[in-house]
Amino acid sequence: MTRHVELISTGAELLIGRTVNSHAHALARALHPTGLRLSRDTTIPDDPQVLLGTLKGALERVDVVVVTGGLGPTSDDITRETIAAWLDRPLVLDRDASERIRQACEKRGLEPSQARMRQALVLEGAVVWPNLTGAAPGELIEENGKFIVLLPGPPREMEPILTQSLVPWIEQQYRLIPPPEHIFLLAGAAEGDIVTLFEKHHFPPDGIAAAYCASAGTLEIRLSADSPVLLKGAADTVRGLLGDAVFAEERTSLEAVAGRMLAEKKLTLATAESCTGGLLGSRITNVSGSSAYYLGGVVAYDNRIKIQLLGVSEDTLAGYGAVSPQTAKQMAEGVRQRLGADFGIGITGIAGPAGGTAEKPVGLVYIALADDGQTKVRECRLSSNREFVRFMSTQLALDMLRLRLMQK
Amino acid sequence: MTRHVELISTGAELLIGRTVNSHAHALARALHPTGLRLSRDTTIPDDPQVLLGTLKGALERVDVVVVTGGLGPTSDDITRETIAAWLDRPLVLDRDASERIRQACEKRGLEPSQARMRQALVLEGAVVWPNLTGAAPGELIEENGKFIVLLPGPPREMEPILTQSLVPWIEQQYRLIPPPEHIFLLAGAAEGDIVTLFEKHHFPPDGIAAAYCASAGTLEIRLSADSPVLLKGAADTVRGLLGDAVFAEERTSLEAVAGRMLAEKKLTLATAESCTGGLLGSRITNVSGSSAYYLGGVVAYDNRIKIQLLGVSEDTLAGYGAVSPQTAKQMAEGVRQRLGADFGIGITGIAGPAGGTAEKPVGLVYIALADDGQTKVRECRLSSNREFVRFMSTQLALDMLRLRLMQK
Repeated sequence: MTRHVELISTGAELLIGRTVNSHAHALARALHPTGLRLSRDTTIPDDPQVLLGTLKGALERVDVVVVTGGLGPTSDDITRETIAAWLDRPLVLDRDASERIRQACEKRGLEPSQARMRQALVLEGAVVWPNLTGAAPGELIEENGKFIVLLPGPPREMEPILTQSLVPWIEQQYRLIPPPEHIFLLAGAAEGDIVTLFEKHHFPPDGIAAAYCASAGTLEIRLSADSPVLLKGAADTVRGLLGDAVFAEERTSLEAVAGRMLAEKKLTLATAESCTGGLLGSRITNVSGSSAYYLGGVVAYDNRIKIQLLGVSEDTLAGYGAVSPQTAKQMAEGVRQRLGADFGIGITGIAGPAGGTAEKPVGLVYIALADDGQTKVRECRLSSNREFVRFMSTQLALDMLRLRLMQK
Repeated sequence: MTRHVELISTGAELLIGRTVNSHAHALARALHPTGLRLSRDTTIPDDPQVLLGTLKGALERVDVVVVTGGLGPTSDDITRETIAAWLDRPLVLDRDASERIRQACEKRGLEPSQARMRQALVLEGAVVWPNLTGAAPGELIEENGKFIVLLPGPPREMEPILTQSLVPWIEQQYRLIPPPEHIFLLAGAAEGDIVTLFEKHHFPPDGIAAAYCASAGTLEIRLSADSPVLLKGAADTVRGLLGDAVFAEERTSLEAVAGRMLAEKKLTLATAESCTGGLLGSRITNVSGSSAYYLGGVVAYDNRIKIQLLGVSEDTLAGYGAVSPQTAKQMAEGVRQRLGADFGIGITGIAGPAGGTAEKPVGLVYIALADDGQTKVRECRLSSNREFVRFMSTQLALDMLRLRLMQK
C-alpha cells in the first residue's frame, strides 16, 4: 500500500473566491501522527464528470482518496449520488443519521423534509462515521482494495470526523513509522538570512535535507534524514547556530509558547493596543486556559482613551505624537500598573494603507514591554499590507515577551 | 479560447499542514471581474515529475495555467528550472529583478549570493512581471498558443503581481462579459432554514439557479441566470423574503458594512470583551478608516478588570456570575459611558473547551448593545469549537449593531 493520501475538495465556493480551502491543511495535520502523507489536493467544482475523472486519476496513484463536500441538502450537492451511480451501489438510509436529523428538526420546529433527510443516505456497505456537528455523516467505501472516504464540506463538520473517525481507522489499517524529521520555529526571521548563516557553517551536511516555509510571521525550518542519528546531530547544530531565536521545536503558536511560560512562572500580562485594535488580546485568548495569566487590556484606538484609561500624558501625545516610542512606553507602563499585571505590552503604529507620512511611514510600529524593572521599546519598520503589519506587530510583541521571560 | 484558468500550487508546506493554501481564493477573487473562472486548483509537492504531469494535464483542459511557488533561493525550489528544461528554453537573467535583489542585499548588508541571484532568472522570451514585495518576479510564457504563468509562492508577493500584472493582461487578452449573478450575504443564518423558506415560496423559479455557501458566520446565497431580466426579478423576490436579514448584496465583511453605517451617521462605538478577548476590536479595526467611528475598548478577561475599568458591580458578578445577561449589560453600558461613545457592545460567554457547567454550558454567550435609549441583551447558544464560538459571538454582535443602525 502507498503511504500517500489524496484529497479532492469539491464545491464552487472554493473556486469563486468565497472561501479559503482549509481542508488540505486540516487533513495534513490530522494525518501527521499516522505517518501517512497528503500527496495532492485537487479542488474542483460540483460537476459529476469532473469529480469522476479526478477520482479515477487519484485512485490510480494512491489507495486512500478523501472527497469533501457535496453531501448537503441542495441540488448542487452531487458527490454521494455520483459515486453511488459510478460504483453501481444503491443508497440506503443510515438509521443513526436520520434519527439525528429528525431530532434536530424537531428541536428547531422544522419539517424533516425530503431534502434534509437525503443527507442521511449512504452507499450500501459503507462504514458510516457519525457527524455530531451537522447532518450528513462521513463514510468509508472499499472498492477493489482501495478506499474512498466521503466527508461533509463545512470545516466544523469535517474536522471532528477526521480526528474522531478517519485517523483511528488509518492507525488501525496502516502501521507505519513516520520518517524522522525535526522542526524549528522562529518569529520574524527572514529565510534568506538563515540560509546565509547556514551556508557560512556548511550546513546542512550530506544526508540531511533542510526545507523552509515562511508564513504568518513564523519561519519553519524542517530537517529530515533517513538516519535518526544524523538528524539528532543536525538538530544540535541548528540549536547551536540559532540559540534563543527558536521559539519552538514542534508545531505550535507563539501565543501558546509565551502563555505556557507565563503560566509556569505564575506571572500575569495586560495589553494596550492601538493599531492592532485587539488582535494581540484575541491571539492570546485563543489559547484555552489563558485566563490563568492574561488579565485583559485596553484597545486605545482614540487618543482620548490613551489618556483616560492608560494615563498617557497629553504632552507626550502633543510633543511626540501617538506613534512614538514615548507613547508606546507610557501605554505599556500604564496598562501594567492600572491592571495590576506583572507585564504590560503597548503597541502603537501606522497599519496603513492611509495615515503614513514621510517621517512616519505606513508600517512604522513601536512595541513596548514593561515589567517591574524596566521598559524596553522596539521600533519596527514593516512592509506589505494592513493585515500583515498588524499581525507582525503582535508576533514581534509576543516574541519580545518570550525573550524577556527566558531571562526571568 | 476557454473561459477557464487552472491553478497549480506547489510546495511541501501546503501538504504537511503547515500553511493554509490561500492562492485559489486570491486568484478566484482577482479573476472575478474579468469574467474568467478558476476551474481547478491542484496542490502538489515540489517534485519535477509531479509538476510536469499536472501541468501537461491542465494545458490539455485550459489555455491559461498559473503555477505558484518554487521560485525561491533554496534547493527545493524547482519550478523555473523544471519548466525551462521541459520547454527546452534557456534561463536568462532579468536585469530589473537582479538589480532589485542587489539593492535589497546592499540595504541589509548581505552578500548577493548565487542562490539569491538565481531568483532573477526567467525563461527566455517570457514576459516578466515585477515583484515589488520580494525577489523572484512573475513571468508569462507562451507555448503553442497556451499560456503558463509562474508566480512566487508567498501570498504577499504573489497577490500584488496577480492584481497589478496578471489581471490587466487577462483583460487585454480576453474580452468577456461575466455571466449575470447576484449575491446576498446573511450573518448567522442556517442554510437549511433559507432553503425551507424558499421552498415554501416555490423559489427559485425555472431559469434561476441558487447556490449556497456558509463560512465564517456568513451565509452566501448566489443566484445566477442566463437572463439578466429573470435575475433581477429573482433578486427582488429574495430581497422581499429575507428583508433586514441581508447585510450586503456584494462580497464584503459585516465589519465593513457596520463600519460604513457608523461613519455615515457620524456615530461612535466602544467595545467591552470578555470571552472574545479583543477579536471584536481586531475585526472592526481591520477596516481601514475605522478610527473615524471606533474609539477603542476594554478586554476584561479578569473579573477585576470588569469592575475597575467598566464599572460592573461586584454584586452582579457575585449574584449572577460573569457569564450572565446582567454582566453583559453592565459591560456594554460601562464602556459606552466611560469611553464617551454612542454605542457600547459587551460580550461575555464560555468559549470552551473548558469552563462549562450544566447550567452554563460551553457556547453560552451574552451579547449586549447599549445606546442612549436602551440596552438590548441577546442570549446565544453556540456549538462547535473555541474559535467558532468566539468568531460567531463577534459576528452576532456586529449584526445586532447593524440592525440597530438601520432603525436610526
